[in-house]
Amino acid sequence: MTRTSIDLNADLGEGFGRWRLTDDERLLSVVTSANVACGFHAGDAATMRRVCALAAERGVRIGAQVSYRDLAGFGRRAMDVPADELAAEVAYQIGALEVFARAAGARVSYVKPHGALYNRVVHDPEQARAVVEGVLLTGGRLPLLGLPGSRLHACAREAGLPVVTEAFADRAYAEDGTLVPRGREGAVLHDPEAVVERSVSLARSGTVTSHSGLPLSVRARSLCLHGDTPGAVELARRVRARLEEAGVRVEAFT
Amino acid sequence: MTRTSIDLNADLGEGFGRWRLTDDERLLSVVTSANVACGFHAGDAATMRRVCALAAERGVRIGAQVSYRDLAGFGRRAMDVPADELAAEVAYQIGALEVFARAAGARVSYVKPHGALYNRVVHDPEQARAVVEGVLLTGGRLPLLGLPGSRLHACAREAGLPVVTEAFADRAYAEDGTLVPRGREGAVLHDPEAVVERSVSLARSGTVTSHSGLPLSVRARSLCLHGDTPGAVELARRVRARLEEAGVRVEAFT
Amino acid sequence: MTRTSIDLNADLGEGFGRWRLTDDERLLSVVTSANVACGFHAGDAATMRRVCALAAERGVRIGAQVSYRDLAGFGRRAMDVPADELAAEVAYQIGALEVFARAAGARVSYVKPHGALYNRVVHDPEQARAVVEGVLLTGGRLPLLGLPGSRLHACAREAGLPVVTEAFADRAYAEDGTLVPRGREGAVLHDPEAVVERSVSLARSGTVTSHSGLPLSVRARSLCLHGDTPGAVELARRVRARLEEAGVRVEAFT
Amino acid sequence: MTRTSIDLNADLGEGFGRWRLTDDERLLSVVTSANVACGFHAGDAATMRRVCALAAERGVRIGAQVSYRDLAGFGRRAMDVPADELAAEVAYQIGALEVFARAAGARVSYVKPHGALYNRVVHDPEQARAVVEGVLLTGGRLPLLGLPGSRLHACAREAGLPVVTEAFADRAYAEDGTLVPRGREGAVLHDPEAVVERSVSLARSGTVTSHSGLPLSVRARSLCLHGDTPGAVELARRVRARLEEAGVRVEAFT
Repeated sequence: MTRTSIDLNADLGEGFGRWRLTDDERLLSVVTSANVACGFHAGDAATMRRVCALAAERGVRIGAQVSYRDLAGFGRRAMDVPADELAAEVAYQIGALEVFARAAGARVSYVKPHGALYNRVVHDPEQARAVVEGVLLTGGRLPLLGLPGSRLHACAREAGLPVVTEAFADRAYAEDGTLVPRGREGAVLHDPEAVVERSVSLARSGTVTSHSGLPLSVRARSLCLHGDTPGAVELARRVRARLEEAGVRVEAFT
Repeated sequence: MTRTSIDLNADLGEGFGRWRLTDDERLLSVVTSANVACGFHAGDAATMRRVCALAAERGVRIGAQVSYRDLAGFGRRAMDVPADELAAEVAYQIGALEVFARAAGARVSYVKPHGALYNRVVHDPEQARAVVEGVLLTGGRLPLLGLPGSRLHACAREAGLPVVTEAFADRAYAEDGTLVPRGREGAVLHDPEAVVERSVSLARSGTVTSHSGLPLSVRARSLCLHGDTPGAVELARRVRARLEEAGVRVEAFT
Repeated sequence: MTRTSIDLNADLGEGFGRWRLTDDERLLSVVTSANVACGFHAGDAATMRRVCALAAERGVRIGAQVSYRDLAGFGRRAMDVPADELAAEVAYQIGALEVFARAAGARVSYVKPHGALYNRVVHDPEQARAVVEGVLLTGGRLPLLGLPGSRLHACAREAGLPVVTEAFADRAYAEDGTLVPRGREGAVLHDPEAVVERSVSLARSGTVTSHSGLPLSVRARSLCLHGDTPGAVELARRVRARLEEAGVRVEAFT
Repeated sequence: MTRTSIDLNADLGEGFGRWRLTDDERLLSVVTSANVACGFHAGDAATMRRVCALAAERGVRIGAQVSYRDLAGFGRRAMDVPADELAAEVAYQIGALEVFARAAGARVSYVKPHGALYNRVVHDPEQARAVVEGVLLTGGRLPLLGLPGSRLHACAREAGLPVVTEAFADRAYAEDGTLVPRGREGAVLHDPEAVVERSVSLARSGTVTSHSGLPLSVRARSLCLHGDTPGAVELARRVRARLEEAGVRVEAFT
């Protein structure tokens, strides 16, 4: 498979009140899709407004990064939230973000679950359905950004919602195409050059080498870049530059 | 002044998670406008969804009851929130509620500040402007429900937003038309019959007797009923029945 | 086994700010041990202070009812909290309560996990150890109130902490002595007389009839009464009266 | 007045969950008193534990930095909290911190209000009394660190609590000895050398030059250093080094 274009997405607006995490301003000059935190794991209202304004100004697509309600855990602790509560909480977050996207002359164009919720809906059918129901509640037909083969994507398709697949250039893949869990040795790639090369390989040929050394086919219309570590913006820029040199158009998914 | 119609509004959905406060179901069969809590002083997402669905079903108008972010204090503690944060927080709450109103086939039709914010924007120009800015951010031209003569209404008019005046049948009025502060003796009327009579007087002639016994003119297109005390629903029903007997049409403001 | 005395415990102070749930005042005239909410699933500081003062006045033992940090879910949603965070959060809650117990001339005498955490530490060794570590951090040798046979009790014993077993007179038991999960049919007993009889049976002979009709031996030095439903206080009083009629001394565990 | 010793205090542990703010580790090698955030404006339980352990290891005195309950506003928004709630909230925070101080083999040695509460209790007698009542609730006779001449100190003295005065080397003083409010031009000194010189002058002679150029006498047993800005640790080190060169002993107040 040869792909001529790829979307670059990153988590943005992940501060809260006095605290900052992501370098929103500089990341917005690299990515084509901004996963904006909506207040449940991070993201106060004033930050959401500011990030939406910046994103709109630079033509970056705005997505709702929805999460469990867990500021203390940054949304990284799996929670057994009943389906009706979870669906309503997802809708609540999207609705709040819509105001700021609209105020910036843009709109919310997709939804991406964050952290523990992201991992949970890879396998959990009840929570996956709840997230999809939350999106349906908003009345829009927003695409769901997630792992290819995830339960979330299966549920979204059943409900008639579009899905967008993503890959991670800085994460190790198991042979079955799932991510090697954080915490395992080698789960996260720290060598910038390796990350850049994998990005190009993922974008051009849809392949990546698994943790065990086997070639793996990974469908992905979007690459997820991380923005919360030192050097993250520089790495993101290198990835984008190398993709463009390799003839890949970097543009938002349609 | 003779008025042939009046709106009845009440605070609804003021529970949070496991906790309930207002008898939403029964109040929705009495009032014509529902001030729905949006999550900052009360009101979780699932409750907001449920209340909007019930309100829409019964043809009750949905308003956003916006508040300071203060669950522990139920929004009753005045806060010096910087204007830009307050504006964004107001917009955030309205946006979140819009999703559930829309999902119920309705829409958010007005905005009413809650508790300490309500009292603050009677006099404070900076916070009044911030609330109005928050409403403008949503892109709608939502009317602001509040005290006649309040700074909030002055700011709303300057910004071209409609205003809706309200009166309180169970609160004592000072001679200048402001409410006698809670805590003062006689600030709240506890005699149901007195509340009912004042309601009729406010609706029919726009007059009320002040705390000191003087006749007072009080413009009000809406009467605020309280729903969080024992006997509240029964009193609300009596008010509505007596208004209708007195030839007043009970209907949402336009 | 014949037991001549039993402790009665109940969850207290489970309001938050404007919201109330438990009838603390009246329950404190029935129970001998008060599981006081410490602010993570319920229980603001002023309520903790008030409940501790009342409990001390009536000679009711004060325990820390520790929970996941989850006001929105009332601590009923299982969470994957890392062990070090959970241990610190447990210690934090106990420390906060100690101040109010001490101010009332009493002290925190035991610890009981709440809701989803209670259920989780029946089986989960990591979280069970984290709760025990949290208790050890406080420097006291506080007993842990919980299910007989629970992982929590095993971990507490390993750490040299005392354990106190409890039983539920209004919950159905499976044949292995665990509780039939809420949500299953028949999981909660609603017939007051049945609850009263089971209380006496549990206290006098340490036996209860399982869901399937088999006699079951259930060791318990404490019976848990529920205080958050209509009629709860009356039922608690009946249980206590009947226990005393049956010659059981109702007194705090030692 | 010649003073031969001075205490250096700084705010520590002001992160929350995923977010960090202060460079706790390095600041703890400079200051003699650590104002540890207790969870209301910042400071999760795991951070409190870690900071207390580090402080105890280095012999740095631990103080409770108590705040309004306002994570979103970092405790910088004045709030009209009723006195009984505020007193209980202050006690709650101190109690929570005591656990971690004790676990580290140390104890909480003083209390310092944070942010908007700090400013409020300079003038507001009701909130000042509430803070003092909160300290009294803990049963200890903890000194209150604050501005000389503040209402807080007056209330503390009336209640028989010790007070410790502090000065700010990086803030401009008005002629009446109060701080020039943040936001006014020149309110914060950015020149490191000026800050260092003022520190020495405050410590050695108890004098400082006012905003308008007049010499001012400022009693202070402690200097507050800020740890949340770039270069803060380096500046703190320079201040300490210069004080020691000038013959001032840097040591915790007694």
